[in-house]
Amino acid sequence: MRKEMFNHEINILRDTYRRLLRRQAKTNLMKLTKKTHPADLATVFRHFSDEEQLEIFSFMNENEHTAEFLSELDDSLVKELLSKEPLNRVAEIIQNAPTNDQSGILNALEEETAKSILELLKEEEQEEIAEIMGYPEDSAGSLMNTEVFTLHESITAGDAIKTLQDQEDAEMVFYLYITDDDDRLVGVISLRILTTTPSSTTLKDIMIKNVHSIRPETDQEDVARIVAQYNFLAVPVIDSDSHLLGIVTVDDVVDVIREEATEDFLQMAGAGKDREILLKSSWESAKTRLPWLFASWIGGVVAASLIGVFEHMLENIIALAAFIPVILGMGGNIATQSSTIIVRGMATGRVNIGGEIKLILKEIQVGILLGVLYGILLGVFAHIVFTDAPDNLGLVVGLSICVSMVVAATVGTIIPLILRKLDIDPAIATGPFVTTSIDILGVLFYFLIAGLFLTL
Amino acid sequence: MRKEMFNHEINILRDTYRRLLRRQAKTNLMKLTKKTHPADLATVFRHFSDEEQLEIFSFMNENEHTAEFLSELDDSLVKELLSKEPLNRVAEIIQNAPTNDQSGILNALEEETAKSILELLKEEEQEEIAEIMGYPEDSAGSLMNTEVFTLHESITAGDAIKTLQDQEDAEMVFYLYITDDDDRLVGVISLRILTTTPSSTTLKDIMIKNVHSIRPETDQEDVARIVAQYNFLAVPVIDSDSHLLGIVTVDDVVDVIREEATEDFLQMAGAGKDREILLKSSWESAKTRLPWLFASWIGGVVAASLIGVFEHMLENIIALAAFIPVILGMGGNIATQSSTIIVRGMATGRVNIGGEIKLILKEIQVGILLGVLYGILLGVFAHIVFTDAPDNLGLVVGLSICVSMVVAATVGTIIPLILRKLDIDPAIATGPFVTTSIDILGVLFYFLIAGLFLTL
Repeated sequence: MRKEMFNHEINILRDTYRRLLRRQAKTNLMKLTKKTHPADLATVFRHFSDEEQLEIFSFMNENEHTAEFLSELDDSLVKELLSKEPLNRVAEIIQNAPTNDQSGILNALEEETAKSILELLKEEEQEEIAEIMGYPEDSAGSLMNTEVFTLHESITAGDAIKTLQDQEDAEMVFYLYITDDDDRLVGVISLRILTTTPSSTTLKDIMIKNVHSIRPETDQEDVARIVAQYNFLAVPVIDSDSHLLGIVTVDDVVDVIREEATEDFLQMAGAGKDREILLKSSWESAKTRLPWLFASWIGGVVAASLIGVFEHMLENIIALAAFIPVILGMGGNIATQSSTIIVRGMATGRVNIGGEIKLILKEIQVGILLGVLYGILLGVFAHIVFTDAPDNLGLVVGLSICVSMVVAATVGTIIPLILRKLDIDPAIATGPFVTTSIDILGVLFYFLIAGLFLTL
Repeated sequence: MRKEMFNHEINILRDTYRRLLRRQAKTNLMKLTKKTHPADLATVFRHFSDEEQLEIFSFMNENEHTAEFLSELDDSLVKELLSKEPLNRVAEIIQNAPTNDQSGILNALEEETAKSILELLKEEEQEEIAEIMGYPEDSAGSLMNTEVFTLHESITAGDAIKTLQDQEDAEMVFYLYITDDDDRLVGVISLRILTTTPSSTTLKDIMIKNVHSIRPETDQEDVARIVAQYNFLAVPVIDSDSHLLGIVTVDDVVDVIREEATEDFLQMAGAGKDREILLKSSWESAKTRLPWLFASWIGGVVAASLIGVFEHMLENIIALAAFIPVILGMGGNIATQSSTIIVRGMATGRVNIGGEIKLILKEIQVGILLGVLYGILLGVFAHIVFTDAPDNLGLVVGLSICVSMVVAATVGTIIPLILRKLDIDPAIATGPFVTTSIDILGVLFYFLIAGLFLTL
């Protein structure tokens, strides 16, 4: 988490832009936008005001660089920035960008605007973009780069290198994909092998025939898993007839992994899944977070009603009320530990199907170990500090926290496992579900135990 | 989070191994271990019993493949597996592995064992490994691959390709690093450019001179940020005299990003930072989670004492106790939302230094919006359902939840910002700190407000 250095550099860059803007140093601004790496420019842009953003953007006149910048920029900023631009400038900017960048930028815009811009592009480009935009969001198809360099299996290594020399467009050439007469993907050769092979050898004889490929519908998380698991630099995307549609490259996978982690973080906290929530207005942020809080509101209302039912017990022993927060709090915290461990374990392939029972039993053990410890601690505390209360208060409180923690660890483990079984993303619903159930169950067990051990 | 497909494949693989083990089909097992991708084998190993692991490991007799498998395996499993192996078999296995894999495997073992194995290796290897192991954990030095392919700036493209042909070892050659007479890194050429350049051109004339490099002490998160930000496939590591020490490749960066995300997840939940916690015994798991629960125990005890102080209020209006869970629960949840958004924002470069005040103000606004809404909802509920209670109960409860949520959103935002200022990893301490403070503050404000509006 040491982002200080990076933040420092970004702050310097921001200040430089601000200084030039104040001085209205147009030539310098034009030069600086050209010199700043598109990815850095996209990062620093988050820290400018709307007016500053528009002004700086007006100085960017190298279309390729600008397109790269836009593809690195947060979607909400892209939308804001381009909504004020003439459509033909946008079309010019994205005209020669890779297809996945083009579709990414257009996807950030209003549908109508995107459509109008699309119509300004060359027909060939239009078709390619429409194809990519037709794949589901978060699929390999929407991630892939369609400009892939392919070679026929019958040509020689020497000819392959010559062909490569004429090729300017194909991004990231480190694997060369080999096709047969029917244009099907039949093999792959690394550029290194090609370079070090006698030039008369045909590609067929040196290519690796068993190519790990994916389909355009493959979920981006599966793509990420494959690339991470096998240390690939790129993975080819093919259709049902083995025709090569494109490749997903490792740099896009890196972005996917970071984005998915961010979404999981937010979801586990019951804060939606909008990665750009920090860029949104308070109103929008509140709207995103509202429904998840509703779950815990319901839990609280049920807990309040439950306590209402047990009011007669509280009337007799007021001290019982004092321990409600710690019993629910400890339960909530151990449940969060358990569910986070399970949810993250699922995401990293450490929770296998078939091992659920063992896992639940282990978490129950952990709950017992920690529950007994904190039960004794709290029981002793209650006994010593609340001297006016009945003798058994320590026992009731200690036992309750122990039960609450065991139940919480169990529930925190079971809920994500059940959600997965139901094919619901465990990250989405675990947080709110778990805390809500713990609030209700904790109160219930507390008063049941109190009823057993205290004479009222 | 759709891991089903992957899990399914892993389960089939596991079952195949189990079937062969039951039949004691040694030849088949030997073949299958050879055929299984080391990364897949490492994943499936998590799901075998200790005995099964040892038995399968005994059938692995291809050292290079085994070393790769070990470098993909979880540290705790490496330790368990190798502690029972003769030292010279371990030495043989890792003898020819890349240096960073060697040091990774040795780092997983007991120090004494690692030392004894190290002594069995060739002297040259020993020195290289010792150097890598000398760098701090989680630094670029410990991640880097020392077998880098370098070329002198004065040679021609043609000669470079010839040299490349004799080179067998250098892993992942896609960038060629260029050195001067003093062996300093002066440039870089992509393999593609080299391949497509006339063979008489000297490297000096085609190399990119401005190489983005890092130092061995650079934190692995910064390395990950650089690689992710600029879409690098590898980044060179140099010493203070610009000598090339090694490269960190994107596949290792992918692992770093996933591991760091996992650690942040666990830390935010107050569950330590051991990525392999699922592989640990209940006892070890409880030990890791215990200290973080202690923070919330303290918070609970303080809250209990506070409520003890206000006991006279509860005596008069028992219904007040019923709303303690929902007031603390809603506060805790909105605080978790805020702090997660901030902590993740810091990790992804969306929270810049200098914008803190604006951020806090925005979260306060969100707190007010949601607090007013849920305050009204809860106030109305209290008023309608708790008919025996004083008239003002609805007002008190509604106002309290509103205040609790505003305070919680503020605290949840401020705590990670303060931790960062103090150079403490915000992910480590935010979770427990936040929930503890909310428990105490929530109770305090609740009873203060009750004291103001209720006649007792």
